[in-house]
Amino acid sequence: MILDRIDDQALRVGIVGTGFIGAGWAVVFARAGCDVRLFDPAKEAAERGAALARDIVGRVPVAPARGRGNIRLVGSLAEAIADADWVQESGPEDADVKIRILMELDAIAPAGAIIASSTSAIMPSRFMERVPGRARCLVAHPFNPPYLIPVVELVPSPWTDPEIVERARAILSFVGQSPVLVAREVAGFIANRLQAAVISEAISLVARGVAAPEDVDACMVGALGLRWALMGPFETMDSNAPGGFAAYVGRFGDSYQDLVRDLRVADPWPQDALDRIEGALRRRRPIDELPEFNSWRDMMVARLRSLVASEQGELSLDLENRRPAPPPWS
Amino acid sequence: MILDRIDDQALRVGIVGTGFIGAGWAVVFARAGCDVRLFDPAKEAAERGAALARDIVGRVPVAPARGRGNIRLVGSLAEAIADADWVQESGPEDADVKIRILMELDAIAPAGAIIASSTSAIMPSRFMERVPGRARCLVAHPFNPPYLIPVVELVPSPWTDPEIVERARAILSFVGQSPVLVAREVAGFIANRLQAAVISEAISLVARGVAAPEDVDACMVGALGLRWALMGPFETMDSNAPGGFAAYVGRFGDSYQDLVRDLRVADPWPQDALDRIEGALRRRRPIDELPEFNSWRDMMVARLRSLVASEQGELSLDLENRRPAPPPWS
Repeated sequence: MILDRIDDQALRVGIVGTGFIGAGWAVVFARAGCDVRLFDPAKEAAERGAALARDIVGRVPVAPARGRGNIRLVGSLAEAIADADWVQESGPEDADVKIRILMELDAIAPAGAIIASSTSAIMPSRFMERVPGRARCLVAHPFNPPYLIPVVELVPSPWTDPEIVERARAILSFVGQSPVLVAREVAGFIANRLQAAVISEAISLVARGVAAPEDVDACMVGALGLRWALMGPFETMDSNAPGGFAAYVGRFGDSYQDLVRDLRVADPWPQDALDRIEGALRRRRPIDELPEFNSWRDMMVARLRSLVASEQGELSLDLENRRPAPPPWS
Repeated sequence: MILDRIDDQALRVGIVGTGFIGAGWAVVFARAGCDVRLFDPAKEAAERGAALARDIVGRVPVAPARGRGNIRLVGSLAEAIADADWVQESGPEDADVKIRILMELDAIAPAGAIIASSTSAIMPSRFMERVPGRARCLVAHPFNPPYLIPVVELVPSPWTDPEIVERARAILSFVGQSPVLVAREVAGFIANRLQAAVISEAISLVARGVAAPEDVDACMVGALGLRWALMGPFETMDSNAPGGFAAYVGRFGDSYQDLVRDLRVADPWPQDALDRIEGALRRRRPIDELPEFNSWRDMMVARLRSLVASEQGELSLDLENRRPAPPPWS
């Protein structure tokens, strides 16, 4: 099966749907040495997606032991997945369309293949129930762009075989992603729920006249984000009290519980607050500079990841040798 | 007044309370060339705080044009603030204690001095109302450690003179911090409200069996945090749709509004979920390795800030010359 093969043969990947996400997946798999076939029923979109993926994969670091994989644009869904180990559906965000695509994928894909959907918002039970091979189907939701943002949320439907989930996890780790398990279907999975909580409270602070939009953004980039680029919310709490997480909760738990009852996360988003935020953002940067800003963002994400990865290596080493960590600014 | 002086003379700063936050403030002001006096009624704590501040300030980069300031431990509150331009109260988090301290500070500090409190949780109206000079008092809430995390939340009481708020902003910017204005008193100010929203939803996801603690942390450090180290929540939305923030809200606003009604931010924190999180964190790192982890964290925060600062410089340059940003991995 796939797990036996991933160390010695090129994994065969079929990607259906070649928008930004499908093209991004192609990069992820190709830089890990996989044999990638792309298909999109819209011919122009298919060619654009394939060209984009090839362009990016020519510039990203490639898994040295495995070499660069192959990205091939094919003319039919069957050609894309006929001998695939992994099928990645990245079509439109529409449950009915996804049902039709998954039916077809399941009818054609070889018995051993895993069928994954990139959906960010549709519950797997909604579009996998009627698929005969639903036991091998699951959601693998990436972030944008997937070759820079490593997390993939794996969401099994109620009918997904637990063995398939484990294999999916192993394969995604093998190609360099960070799979996380969403054990039960919930709207927004994990990351978008956390993001929604932040966004909504942030909008409410502007709506209530507590904070200017730029000051909300400044609090993230100059305080909270400096922790969260390095560690998650639980590890942050752990590091903020000498006795760790339990001590932190013992000391601040009651205050936080009072505070969360005061939050306005579920408030509607008033239009005048949205207008003020848009105004503040446009004063900072005109719309036509967004593509350039996004190039900067992607470059910086790549550099942040290199920095953290290299220093975490140093940390493990330090801990192993029981040497104190180097001081700041050394 | 102070604003006229900050460019040509050393700003005089009196810090009352020499725990981690008071000592951290001493570093912030001393590296900006200020003349800092420290006082704490507990003699041992005072000596420990002064030694810590001097040790750190000997290692941090100093404002080159101004040279390293002076940190002096003094024996009385009066000596600390008798000729101060800025007084920073960093005493115990107890409203009654703070009322007593502020009364004394206000009685002694020169007429032109600003009196700021480091409180993270007590509303300024609660302990400033009865202070005769309440017009010059406000909260200046830093993060830990203040010399690495630049944001300072400025929270005026209802009686704070708006001119004092503007001067406080100018002085904190001058010493290299990033002041933000909390225009109306709300529990948790800005950053801790956003943090509380994330923490509470995160705990709820563990409590409901949706996610393992380590997978929640992974979603932050491998997805959301890679954006939020570079830009706030509004700028993130702005960059996630070709038409910017307004287009993003137009496209995803309704889904987010559905989603936020499903969040469980206000749920209580069940003990068994807290125990599972503590267990996951201890498997990752024993308590006695936390100090070393925190040294690593502080070093990394310093490096993240250098990286972002240097690259934002590059960005401005790029935008000015209308050259495209360099590609990732170049």
